[in-house]
Amino acid sequence: MQAPSPTACLIVIGNEILSGRTQDTNVVWLAKALNDTGIRLAEVRIIPDVTQTIVETVDACRSEFTYVFTTGGIGPTHDDITSDAIAKAFGVPLARNQEAETLLQRHYGQGKLNAARLKMAEIPAGASLVLNPVSAAPGFRIENVFVLAGVPSIMQAMFEGLRHELKGGAKMLSKTLSAFITEGVIAERLAAIQEQCPDVEIGSYPFMRQHRLGTSLVVRGTDEATLNAAHRRIKELLLGLTQEVAEEDWAA
Amino acid sequence: MQAPSPTACLIVIGNEILSGRTQDTNVVWLAKALNDTGIRLAEVRIIPDVTQTIVETVDACRSEFTYVFTTGGIGPTHDDITSDAIAKAFGVPLARNQEAETLLQRHYGQGKLNAARLKMAEIPAGASLVLNPVSAAPGFRIENVFVLAGVPSIMQAMFEGLRHELKGGAKMLSKTLSAFITEGVIAERLAAIQEQCPDVEIGSYPFMRQHRLGTSLVVRGTDEATLNAAHRRIKELLLGLTQEVAEEDWAA
Repeated sequence: MQAPSPTACLIVIGNEILSGRTQDTNVVWLAKALNDTGIRLAEVRIIPDVTQTIVETVDACRSEFTYVFTTGGIGPTHDDITSDAIAKAFGVPLARNQEAETLLQRHYGQGKLNAARLKMAEIPAGASLVLNPVSAAPGFRIENVFVLAGVPSIMQAMFEGLRHELKGGAKMLSKTLSAFITEGVIAERLAAIQEQCPDVEIGSYPFMRQHRLGTSLVVRGTDEATLNAAHRRIKELLLGLTQEVAEEDWAA
Repeated sequence: MQAPSPTACLIVIGNEILSGRTQDTNVVWLAKALNDTGIRLAEVRIIPDVTQTIVETVDACRSEFTYVFTTGGIGPTHDDITSDAIAKAFGVPLARNQEAETLLQRHYGQGKLNAARLKMAEIPAGASLVLNPVSAAPGFRIENVFVLAGVPSIMQAMFEGLRHELKGGAKMLSKTLSAFITEGVIAERLAAIQEQCPDVEIGSYPFMRQHRLGTSLVVRGTDEATLNAAHRRIKELLLGLTQEVAEEDWAA
């Protein structure tokens, strides 16, 4: 067995997600990007724009996971309270970052860097910048916590810029099989395969597609040979029951 | 000011979400359904299929929020560990539920209720059933915790069946305005409006649409007159800057 992968927690700071107004897409994107880097997304918390909640959540998560990412709340408006909350969580003051001010000055042009925009140059003392190639206003890193924008295209651009700072482990590989077989039919034999292949993780995910129930079976692991062996056994199991087995994800 | 709304926490139990394999849609749906019932979704946690993590998360959340909902992990396969974990969180044993067994027996038909499927009739002692009109296998309620399926269509049908058990407060109303104005231009005047209208919550959400940055401004509150007053003021502010103001959500 290899050493366990580094872990990450994503803290989504956003009333707009909790109200149902905005469909989150950052979780899927970051989960895949982290996995490509050999880091396992181990937990996500979606919390409201409330300073005390942000402080407590960041505090709880930064000791539990290798890396913590936050998204949202670093803009210039009154409801952008993330930077202040992160400073409180680390017990440091907010301070004007000279590099950030220069970046904002260049982006907005002479005379347009008003007080609200200048607020985006205030980051916790000791933090380093995470650059924003889309709209200039930077995120930042303090210890193992990365503070990013919530707008997906900006969050993604920020992540690409910070990726080299992350230290990943073995990459998680996965293979999927889907069939219109309900879980109850295969559960016992699937449990036996899982028992005989303890180095992979076998997930069974029911789905509903065109009003038919089926199951996607996902094998995950860091060693390709072990992964393939488990995958083969599941494929044999399914092919004994139906001819319609697909090497793809049929999740709803 | 009215009494604060009851709160809810959603615990998504699902390696398939954390791996990036499945795009969650349950958060948005449940957020809206709860809001219609006068309950505020106050936090979401997405956690892996690990018994200890489920136990600790449920334990932390059930005392903090009025209601807790979990989704996922109540099927018949080896990775369905939610019922067992919930029983552990409440310190009660799993017990065969007679009503659940009858429902499953009727659904699968004579001779097809195998051991794996029968596992779905094992729920924490003292829990009551949450019916599943789609595929029979029920969820359950224990105290303020509702344990639901993860498949969206089944989760939704279960929620409709349990909705009458929830005690909601005042319904949160909201109105949105969107314009291609960046936050920094309006931040100061928006903060003034928020200060003058403390009984509503004004959220400012930047978006990127066809490579143009803009902002959606969302006013939320339980009193219609106060809501409309704040909305009008924001509309005046925007119309002073652009003619292109839409009464709709332009989130990315």
